[in-house]
Amino acid sequence: MASTAGQVIRCKAAVAWEAGKPLVIEEVEVAPPQKMEVRLKILFTSLCHTDVYFWEAKGQNPVFPRILGHEASGIVESVGEGVTELQPGDHVLPVFTGECKECAHCKSEESNMCNLLRINTDRGVMLNDGKSRFSINGKPIYHFVGTSTFSEYTVVHVGCVAKINPLAPLDKVCILSCGISTGLGATLNVAKPTKGSSVAVFGLGAVGLAAAEGARIAGASRIIGVDLNPARFEEAKKFGVNEFVNPKDYTKPVQEVIAEMTEGGVDRSVECTGNVNAMISAFECVHDGWGVAVLVGVPHKDAVFQTHPINVLNERTLKGTFFGNYKPRTDLPSVVEKYMNKELELEKFITHEVSFSEINKAFEYMLRGEGLRCLIRMLE
Amino acid sequence: MASTAGQVIRCKAAVAWEAGKPLVIEEVEVAPPQKMEVRLKILFTSLCHTDVYFWEAKGQNPVFPRILGHEASGIVESVGEGVTELQPGDHVLPVFTGECKECAHCKSEESNMCNLLRINTDRGVMLNDGKSRFSINGKPIYHFVGTSTFSEYTVVHVGCVAKINPLAPLDKVCILSCGISTGLGATLNVAKPTKGSSVAVFGLGAVGLAAAEGARIAGASRIIGVDLNPARFEEAKKFGVNEFVNPKDYTKPVQEVIAEMTEGGVDRSVECTGNVNAMISAFECVHDGWGVAVLVGVPHKDAVFQTHPINVLNERTLKGTFFGNYKPRTDLPSVVEKYMNKELELEKFITHEVSFSEINKAFEYMLRGEGLRCLIRMLE
Ligand SMILES: NC(=O)c1ccc[n+]([C@@H]2O[C@H](COP(=O)([O-])OP(=O)(O)OC[C@H]3O[C@@H](n4cnc5c(N)ncnc54)[C@H](O)[C@@H]3O)[C@@H](O)[C@H]2O)c1
Ligand SMILES: NC(=O)c1ccc[n+]([C@@H]2O[C@H](COP(=O)([O-])OP(=O)(O)OC[C@H]3O[C@@H](n4cnc5c(N)ncnc54)[C@H](O)[C@@H]3O)[C@@H](O)[C@H]2O)c1
Ligand SMILES: [Zn+2]
Ligand SMILES: [Zn+2]
Ligand SMILES: [Zn+2]
Ligand SMILES: [Zn+2]
Repeated sequence: MASTAGQVIRCKAAVAWEAGKPLVIEEVEVAPPQKMEVRLKILFTSLCHTDVYFWEAKGQNPVFPRILGHEASGIVESVGEGVTELQPGDHVLPVFTGECKECAHCKSEESNMCNLLRINTDRGVMLNDGKSRFSINGKPIYHFVGTSTFSEYTVVHVGCVAKINPLAPLDKVCILSCGISTGLGATLNVAKPTKGSSVAVFGLGAVGLAAAEGARIAGASRIIGVDLNPARFEEAKKFGVNEFVNPKDYTKPVQEVIAEMTEGGVDRSVECTGNVNAMISAFECVHDGWGVAVLVGVPHKDAVFQTHPINVLNERTLKGTFFGNYKPRTDLPSVVEKYMNKELELEKFITHEVSFSEINKAFEYMLRGEGLRCLIRMLE
Repeated sequence: MASTAGQVIRCKAAVAWEAGKPLVIEEVEVAPPQKMEVRLKILFTSLCHTDVYFWEAKGQNPVFPRILGHEASGIVESVGEGVTELQPGDHVLPVFTGECKECAHCKSEESNMCNLLRINTDRGVMLNDGKSRFSINGKPIYHFVGTSTFSEYTVVHVGCVAKINPLAPLDKVCILSCGISTGLGATLNVAKPTKGSSVAVFGLGAVGLAAAEGARIAGASRIIGVDLNPARFEEAKKFGVNEFVNPKDYTKPVQEVIAEMTEGGVDRSVECTGNVNAMISAFECVHDGWGVAVLVGVPHKDAVFQTHPINVLNERTLKGTFFGNYKPRTDLPSVVEKYMNKELELEKFITHEVSFSEINKAFEYMLRGEGLRCLIRMLE
């Protein structure tokens, strides 16, 4: 690998030229990593809803042409100036949110919202020089959330790279770099259900099912799945969800339905829909005295969360989380270990696989709401 | 004392005959305690805002004639059937919310919202037989929140009585039976600021100043007092409050003022006003990543708490508390000990004293917003 260090690499990347138009596999030039950057060879990537949102760019800032992708696994090809923690050959997960290890958030035990490397969906360039490392015939192609993993090679800030166990299968742990860790951590790090407790999960997509997997690992005895789409229920059984509520089946608010099922409310709830009504229900369905509700879904920019303050005063707790409160560099390696020692199952999340040249199929599956995660193999 | 056990006691009580009319000292008959009840000789009582709200009965259910009062200290005169934990002569604090020790809340380590003995402001009778123990010429006078301490003798459920160190001065620890414990516990048990952290306290009445006292005890270095009434600021200095914000002095929202003072927000906030706008500000002024806001104030029944869900997602926590999360029987004795070993100061909260016959003066001080707590001495 050392042969390419310091040089521009020409490789394939899936370029989003315009909002909502199929990606096009192009030959791109990838510049060498600069100060505090690393260049990665991506081996596997998977499609997450956030890629689709910014590809559709409805109500989002359109930044095109752009290389999307942020859930991935790969190997370090070369490192830039000042990078001492990583070296070529290291197995890694790139992450859309980083950890500089120096700001107040990185130093806090509670936060993972790094001041320097917190997710920024509008920026299409690297921090060091405000420029892109990708180009086609000298014209820049923009980055996405600092990762741009829909490319055989990509350049990432060292703070956005988690070094993991080299024995971990990269085609499985790939999905830990976004959605699965988000849901899992929301339950394990934030909601923290105790053994034998009850947990309601709102939204049974990949994130919600990862939250349910967290509840199963924590030993919750009742895991109540809530979704408007009954097609999600069958699959959810594999994730330990053992009771189901479709709000459409009731005339009364779903929080009342859940309170009746559970003698006053669940011990914990985790909202993974992005819908503000589900957020309110998730809060109001936890038991007074000790219930904790955790919001994960990304809301519409005009959404308003509202509730009667007495619901708070009655000793309920409302929390929010970002990437499951995991600090990417510090904590992801241990999530990979959870998979390695069979505590956590990942295979069941990967419902589809395609080769890189078929990447647009992954978008089609997601748009049809089919399956959970589609793995994209970079090597044919 | 044994001489009165089992007999009706005739004594003085301050009766609220009608909403908003001065209390009248009357001779009342106090029946003996029934099953799981105790009869207390009240030595000291103090006036809390909640007494005033239910005396004014604006937007509250009017229950009259009634004996108000719930912040008090006294001595057990006699006990009813089944009472084994208390005996005549024990020094006690009656509490408006109880602890049955058997329900799910009492068994939970987190909750103090006992199912059986949770505050009930509408009920004017005892649980055992649905009747009052107070009467004048055979006509019942209603109880208030199970305590009715504006009487020389009162009957209380054993679950609403905390037995305390007999060496504790009853004229001081009296105020621990409601407001001071509420504010203190909101900080120490719920907000839990760490040493050197910043805490904003909204509302500098007795409850808010007790919350500030909790922050001082926890070692917070910045204690920011927020009140619309600048007259509160001078007094607040005695309680460790070292910065002051009057929302009226700014055109921008107070949460933005506080964020600017503190590089992004305070570590903890405690809301002690009952005003829903203050509740929203208290939530939004805590730092993202780790901030915790605790609501204490009792809101208007039509109030709506609203915020953009992104404020939650950015890893802020919202909690509510009732009586500072103290379990009255289990935890109050140790709060009394905090006073005994000089960790907690109580004297500075007692700004006025009157004799029982002057009880209406205590109402006047509170209505004028003068001072913090007015102690009422039952023995002339
Ligand atoms: N906080 C973070 O760090 C983070 C990271 C990744 C994803 N997310 C967010 O998590 C959410 C879930 O992601 P996903 O990939 O699992 O999405 P998804 O679309 O696969 O699943 C969402 C599910 O919620 C259901 N749903 C929608 N509205 C509902 C309602 N009102 N009540 C009940 N169910 C409802 C849908 O039917 C769907 O099954 C999204 O909002 C995503 O943006 C957050
Ligand atoms: N949760 C409980 O268990 C519990 C127990 C006792 C009291 N309380 C509640 O705590 C609250 C405080 O009680 P207190 O006796 O200290 O009352 P208080 O009236 O003495 O003090 C309240 C203070 O808040 C200030 N204030 C009002 N609106 C404000 C705003 N928008 N911004 C800033 N300051 C504002 C007032 O000027 C006043 O100084 C009340 O709502 C009371 O009902 C709750
Ligand atoms: Zn940082
Ligand atoms: Zn993602
Ligand atoms: Zn109880
Ligand atoms: Zn009170």
